[in-house]
Amino acid sequence: MYIPSTFSEADAKALAGLISQYPLGLLISSGTSGLLASPIPFLYRENENAPSLVAHLARANPHWKDLAGLSECLVVFQGAANYVSPDWYPSKQTTHKVVPTWNYEMVQVKGVPTIIELTDWLGGQVGELTESMEKRRQTPWRPGDAPSDFIESQMKAIVGLEIRITDMKGKWKMSQNRLPEDVRGVVHGMSDPTDPYFNLRAAEIVSSRNPVK
Amino acid sequence: MYIPSTFSEADAKALAGLISQYPLGLLISSGTSGLLASPIPFLYRENENAPSLVAHLARANPHWKDLAGLSECLVVFQGAANYVSPDWYPSKQTTHKVVPTWNYEMVQVKGVPTIIELTDWLGGQVGELTESMEKRRQTPWRPGDAPSDFIESQMKAIVGLEIRITDMKGKWKMSQNRLPEDVRGVVHGMSDPTDPYFNLRAAEIVSSRNPVK
Repeated sequence: MYIPSTFSEADAKALAGLISQYPLGLLISSGTSGLLASPIPFLYRENENAPSLVAHLARANPHWKDLAGLSECLVVFQGAANYVSPDWYPSKQTTHKVVPTWNYEMVQVKGVPTIIELTDWLGGQVGELTESMEKRRQTPWRPGDAPSDFIESQMKAIVGLEIRITDMKGKWKMSQNRLPEDVRGVVHGMSDPTDPYFNLRAAEIVSSRNPVK
Repeated sequence: MYIPSTFSEADAKALAGLISQYPLGLLISSGTSGLLASPIPFLYRENENAPSLVAHLARANPHWKDLAGLSECLVVFQGAANYVSPDWYPSKQTTHKVVPTWNYEMVQVKGVPTIIELTDWLGGQVGELTESMEKRRQTPWRPGDAPSDFIESQMKAIVGLEIRITDMKGKWKMSQNRLPEDVRGVVHGMSDPTDPYFNLRAAEIVSSRNPVK
């Protein structure tokens, strides 16, 4: 991913935070079946200087067989994304030197994949992933709510995936290259419920990424 | 992408519709620089039996140089996506045989990339892309609003990309494999503003993809 320095985010906490907020990553590889991409929910594990991503795939999904023979894969996490109309920039009215673009936040992780078929590992990963998603809810569901023989049969239908992270990069393209008045114009435009590109979450991120503007 | 028949969507209009609604695709290739993924807005062109995706990239983005030497690339478009809590299923209260999952809509396109550096082609693509985004707005911005020497300098900073489509697949994983009462539970759960996974757009798609439920 091309990352001009203005948009680069290297802070591991910020990158892990985006993964936690948008856990449905796109798992990408190029193996014997060619280019493959599968949407899979991931967990980021810090592991003291040996960070990893962990997930599970349906055994029926042939992607895991390709991964088993590979030394590298890529996982892409995308957060908020929004079209930016040049009409939102006040500088449009003066210089007219403006063009459309997109704002987005994205984390890309490269690593070494390992397929894991140990029942204990799978139980741990499924439990941890479920807790990470359900803890925000008032009535969190737990795997223990289901009959144990049912959970056992479900475990047989999945395989585990651990990706030892070798590279992790973040790009927050959030109007940091614009003049202060244009940044304010973008926030205003994205906060306008009558605009088809109304997006309050994206507006908040543009604000927080441009604190002095 | 693994697509059980229950979730498969082959209708070209539905696939093109998702691309139009979520034009920011993830352009993926495996070339001399290894696995690369770039978020890029795309346009789908029907071209009478020879459909293509067209886009432009910043010349400073090295991804286009890798693409120039490749015979295949992949573009992934993701639409609505949402966590599905088993707590939403009424069958949770009876059989308890339920587990969490994710719903999502996704289109994956494979094709043959060609890099295009013709000014006329670039002008046409930029104009068409801008119109597709701005036509929804009350005060559509047009490239002609900017000074021509400015637009010319912008054109020099981009390269064109045309992908002749060889394969296009759609997956709408929207609870079609659930019992009618569980589908209604999912729609109800996603429509509950007090739930952290509140998502009205996703709820609408679950409804429309399960018409007889």
